[in-house]
Amino acid sequence: MKLATLKSGGRDGTLVVVSKDLTQYAVVGSEAPTLQSALENWQDISPLLRTLSDQIAAGAVETQELDPRQLASPLPRAYQWADGSAYLSHMRLVRQARGAEMPKSFETNPLMYQSGSDGFLAPTQDIPCPDVDWGLDFEGEIAVITDDVAMGCQVEEAEKHIKLIMLCNDISLRHVMKPELQKGFGFFQSKPASAFSPICVTPDELGPAWTGRKITLPLKTTYNGEVFGNVPAGVDLNFDFADLIAHASRTRALVAGTIIGSGTVSNTNHEDVGSSCLAEVRMIETIENGAPSTRFMQPGDHIRFEMFDEDGGSIFGAIDQRVV
Amino acid sequence: MKLATLKSGGRDGTLVVVSKDLTQYAVVGSEAPTLQSALENWQDISPLLRTLSDQIAAGAVETQELDPRQLASPLPRAYQWADGSAYLSHMRLVRQARGAEMPKSFETNPLMYQSGSDGFLAPTQDIPCPDVDWGLDFEGEIAVITDDVAMGCQVEEAEKHIKLIMLCNDISLRHVMKPELQKGFGFFQSKPASAFSPICVTPDELGPAWTGRKITLPLKTTYNGEVFGNVPAGVDLNFDFADLIAHASRTRALVAGTIIGSGTVSNTNHEDVGSSCLAEVRMIETIENGAPSTRFMQPGDHIRFEMFDEDGGSIFGAIDQRVV
Repeated sequence: MKLATLKSGGRDGTLVVVSKDLTQYAVVGSEAPTLQSALENWQDISPLLRTLSDQIAAGAVETQELDPRQLASPLPRAYQWADGSAYLSHMRLVRQARGAEMPKSFETNPLMYQSGSDGFLAPTQDIPCPDVDWGLDFEGEIAVITDDVAMGCQVEEAEKHIKLIMLCNDISLRHVMKPELQKGFGFFQSKPASAFSPICVTPDELGPAWTGRKITLPLKTTYNGEVFGNVPAGVDLNFDFADLIAHASRTRALVAGTIIGSGTVSNTNHEDVGSSCLAEVRMIETIENGAPSTRFMQPGDHIRFEMFDEDGGSIFGAIDQRVV
Repeated sequence: MKLATLKSGGRDGTLVVVSKDLTQYAVVGSEAPTLQSALENWQDISPLLRTLSDQIAAGAVETQELDPRQLASPLPRAYQWADGSAYLSHMRLVRQARGAEMPKSFETNPLMYQSGSDGFLAPTQDIPCPDVDWGLDFEGEIAVITDDVAMGCQVEEAEKHIKLIMLCNDISLRHVMKPELQKGFGFFQSKPASAFSPICVTPDELGPAWTGRKITLPLKTTYNGEVFGNVPAGVDLNFDFADLIAHASRTRALVAGTIIGSGTVSNTNHEDVGSSCLAEVRMIETIENGAPSTRFMQPGDHIRFEMFDEDGGSIFGAIDQRVV
C-alpha cells in the first residue's frame, strides 16, 4: 500500500492511503490519525490500512483527488533520522578529490550520522537559502521507516523491521560542512531540514525491485529541467538497509518511526548514470580539471527526484523543490 | 512550577505538576496530557499549569504521593536533543591529555552535536552495559527545553525560548567513541540513550540562581556513594544557553520540545570542585601520572546527580542509576 500525510490536521498532519496511480486518496481517520501513530501500533493498524487500500483500488470507498502540494513529508517530524553513507563510490570520490586514501574500515563499518528530525520540509516546499555562500546542495537518497527495533538487533533480523520506503532530499550546506566537520562533532548546522517523497510505500509495492534489503531501480534526478542522474540504487551499495539498521541499533533501541537513510545514491560508472548531488559532480571536475566548475544551488534553482516502476509509473511521487 | 512525567499513559507518559518539595503531584489531564503537548501550546497551557501548581501549594486540590520510580524522563522521547560542549575546561583537558592544542575557534564557536532523542532512560532506570569494553561513562549536564524557535534566532532573542530546565546524564561509551569520531561523522553508537532528572522546572523556580541564560548553582555528582563532584554550573561556561540556542537555530528552525544541553559541567579548578564524568578524572590522571588509573563503569556501579537550592532542597530530584 501507499501512504501519505496531508499537511492539514496539526503538526503531524493527517494520514491518508493513496491509490496506486497516486491520483486519489482516502483519510484513515481516528484509528490512526497520523503515520507516527500507525507505526507505533503497526501490527494492528496495517491490516486496516490494507483494507482501505483495497477498497480504494476497487472503487468501494469515497476518495478525494490528490494534489501533491497538499502533502507534507510522510512523517512531518520524527523522533529519529539516522542517515548512512552506504554508496562507497561517493565516499571514494570525496577522498580522491582531495588526494586522500579512503580508510579500509569504511568497507566493513558503515558511516552513519544522527541528523535533525524535528521538522522536515514538505516534498514541494521551497528550500530556504538566506546565504548563497553556505554552498547549498541536494542529495538524492533512499530511506526506510522502521517499527520498534531492540538494542543489538542482528542483520538477519533487521529486514523485518523495514515497514515503509521513500525517497529523500538530504539538503546539505557544503561550505558550512567543511569547518563543522573539522571540529570533530559531526554535522549540525550543515544539515538543515531534509525533505522526503510525498508517498511512502510498503515493500510489497515494489515487487521484485525490492530484494528485502534494498531497491534495485534507478533514482532519477532532474536539475533545472535537465536529467542530472538516473543512478541504480541497488548497485555499488556497500551496506544495505539491514546492515544500516543493525549498525544503528548496536548500542541502543530504535523507536517506531525511525528513519534510516542510504546516503547519496552513487555508482562507480558515474559517466554513464550521472550523479545524485552537486558535490559529486564537483569532485569529478576537480579530479579531471583541477577545480570544480559547477556552482552550488542558488535562489531559483529547481531540483526534482523521482523513481519509476517498469511501466513508467511514479512510485513515490516527486520531491520537487525550488530554492528561495 | 515543577513538572514531571509519569511512566504510565503511553509512550509519552502523563504530565503532572509536582509540589515544590517534590513529595506530591497532580495529573494535568486532557488539556495537556503530555509535556510535549504542553510545549507545543505553551502560551495557552502554561497558565493552567501554574494555576494547578498554586492549588497544590495551597492544598486546594487532591494530590498523590510522588515516588520517583514512577517517573519517566520529563520528555520520555523528543524530536530533538542537541548537546553542546560549553565548558571549555573540559575540552582543554581532553586536548592536554593527548598533548594537543585546543583550536582557537573553540572559544568563539560552540561545539554541538545532534544526539539521539527517540528514547530516553527514566531517571532511576538501570543503564544497560552488555560489554564492559565499551568504556561506559556518565556525564552530568544542565539541559533546557525550548518552545518553537525560528531559523536564525539571535542570541538576544534566544533567552525567551527557554521554557524548562533540568539535569541530564549524557551516557557515553568512551571506547566506542574514539574510532567513531575518527570516521568524521560525529557520535552515533557512542551515545546511547541519555537520562534526565525526574523534575523539570520553569526558570522562575530557580530565583536568582538563574541568570536568564544559565544556572549558577553547583551540580552534585555522587559515584558509588562518594561525592565525586560539586561543580558550579555557572563558572567556566564559555557559551550559555542563549548562545547555544542561537547556534542550533542558525540554519534551521527548532521545534517546540527541543532539548539543548550544556555538555559536561566542568570548572578549571577541578582539584577543588571535582568532576562530572569519569573521562575528565582519567585525563587529569594521564596528565599527572602518564596513564589513567580510574576505570570506566561496570555492572553494579551507581551514579547520582542532583542540584540543591540554598535551603538544601533538591530542585530537580535525583538522576539515580545503576549499571547492569
